[in-house]
Amino acid sequence: MDRLEKIIKNILEFREERDWEQFHNPKDLAISLNLEASELLEHFQWKSDEEIEEYIAENKDSISQELADILYWVLLISHDLDIDIESAVQEKLKLNAKKYPVEKAKGKHTKYTDL
Amino acid sequence: MDRLEKIIKNILEFREERDWEQFHNPKDLAISLNLEASELLEHFQWKSDEEIEEYIAENKDSISQELADILYWVLLISHDLDIDIESAVQEKLKLNAKKYPVEKAKGKHTKYTDL
Amino acid sequence: MDRLEKIIKNILEFREERDWEQFHNPKDLAISLNLEASELLEHFQWKSDEEIEEYIAENKDSISQELADILYWVLLISHDLDIDIESAVQEKLKLNAKKYPVEKAKGKHTKYTDL
Amino acid sequence: MDRLEKIIKNILEFREERDWEQFHNPKDLAISLNLEASELLEHFQWKSDEEIEEYIAENKDSISQELADILYWVLLISHDLDIDIESAVQEKLKLNAKKYPVEKAKGKHTKYTDL
Repeated sequence: MDRLEKIIKNILEFREERDWEQFHNPKDLAISLNLEASELLEHFQWKSDEEIEEYIAENKDSISQELADILYWVLLISHDLDIDIESAVQEKLKLNAKKYPVEKAKGKHTKYTDL
Repeated sequence: MDRLEKIIKNILEFREERDWEQFHNPKDLAISLNLEASELLEHFQWKSDEEIEEYIAENKDSISQELADILYWVLLISHDLDIDIESAVQEKLKLNAKKYPVEKAKGKHTKYTDL
Repeated sequence: MDRLEKIIKNILEFREERDWEQFHNPKDLAISLNLEASELLEHFQWKSDEEIEEYIAENKDSISQELADILYWVLLISHDLDIDIESAVQEKLKLNAKKYPVEKAKGKHTKYTDL
Repeated sequence: MDRLEKIIKNILEFREERDWEQFHNPKDLAISLNLEASELLEHFQWKSDEEIEEYIAENKDSISQELADILYWVLLISHDLDIDIESAVQEKLKLNAKKYPVEKAKGKHTKYTDL
């Protein structure tokens, strides 16, 4: 079994063992995702680039946990909505490649509407 | 190559071709993640459970794209911070299993501090 | 002095006494606002409408504190960016009145682009 | 009538004329607040301090509108939950003054738990 499949399987087992699917509606799942994304952002607040670099070195574990939480919700939502997240990313990269063609977007951080 | 590795490889190639790594500091990456998480949540706002079900059936593509965007940032941030996201999720599941032991948490949606 | 002026005055004094203005750049202030908005949302997560009603009755103080935190940042940001927030709201209501004319928008919760 | 009272009155009239109160439950209102807070943050993303300063000078109107939107939701939620937002801020400033006493917090941007 490949790694992504295995993570998804483990996440679903974790939920199933606790019988939590009954609570998991899309709106509250998306709220969870937002709350965890906020917690990640909080790590980088009030810090300069140099302070962030140092902070990351010293707090890798807790930052990893926030990222894990976010991925947990992304994969649960995708599963519940019957979305193949791998195909979704590949499709999105194709769309973004059209929005941001290399020759126009290279080295520029301009929104595609302004390219 | 397994699926997760392949997605990460494609995402990094996408960025490299556009020479965008120079703009990608952790704070702004985490902001991106938050903005995309908001866009996902917006889909489910002002809707009852029944309306959400119907909405999802009719808007699967755009919801898939939001989830893809979120995963894109999760994987980029993990990469840039040198975090193995697969191990991070497996570690977090172990931690959560301790916080929420099956015998206490089954069928209950109570925060672990109140279990 | 009217109430809004008084709140703004008190907030600015609170900051000045602690000499915190040096840390307050717009990006981090906006992050603070987002973090507090998340904390408010967390109160209403995983709850049905009935549960929320009951929850609010029992947790009015902590919800009030979240709203106060949000207003604190709104007023600080407005002050620092030299924005008269009262005029801003009055202007926005005029704009919204054009986007959502009563005869079209009454009783409908449709985005203005779909009216 | 003082300014804060007048803003609240105008916001409530705007909603009443459109008969929108029926849609306004606390969870969706808090989501609105979060979405608008995200929109504010988006203005400051991918920009250095200098770029932000220049950006603000050129985009004051649209930033004012985001802040107005946020205040709109803060005041609506406060009203619907029967919270006197002015007292809430004054109470919160007192609490924060205890958490961050001037002699300890002056010139330091440390979380109160670490002071």
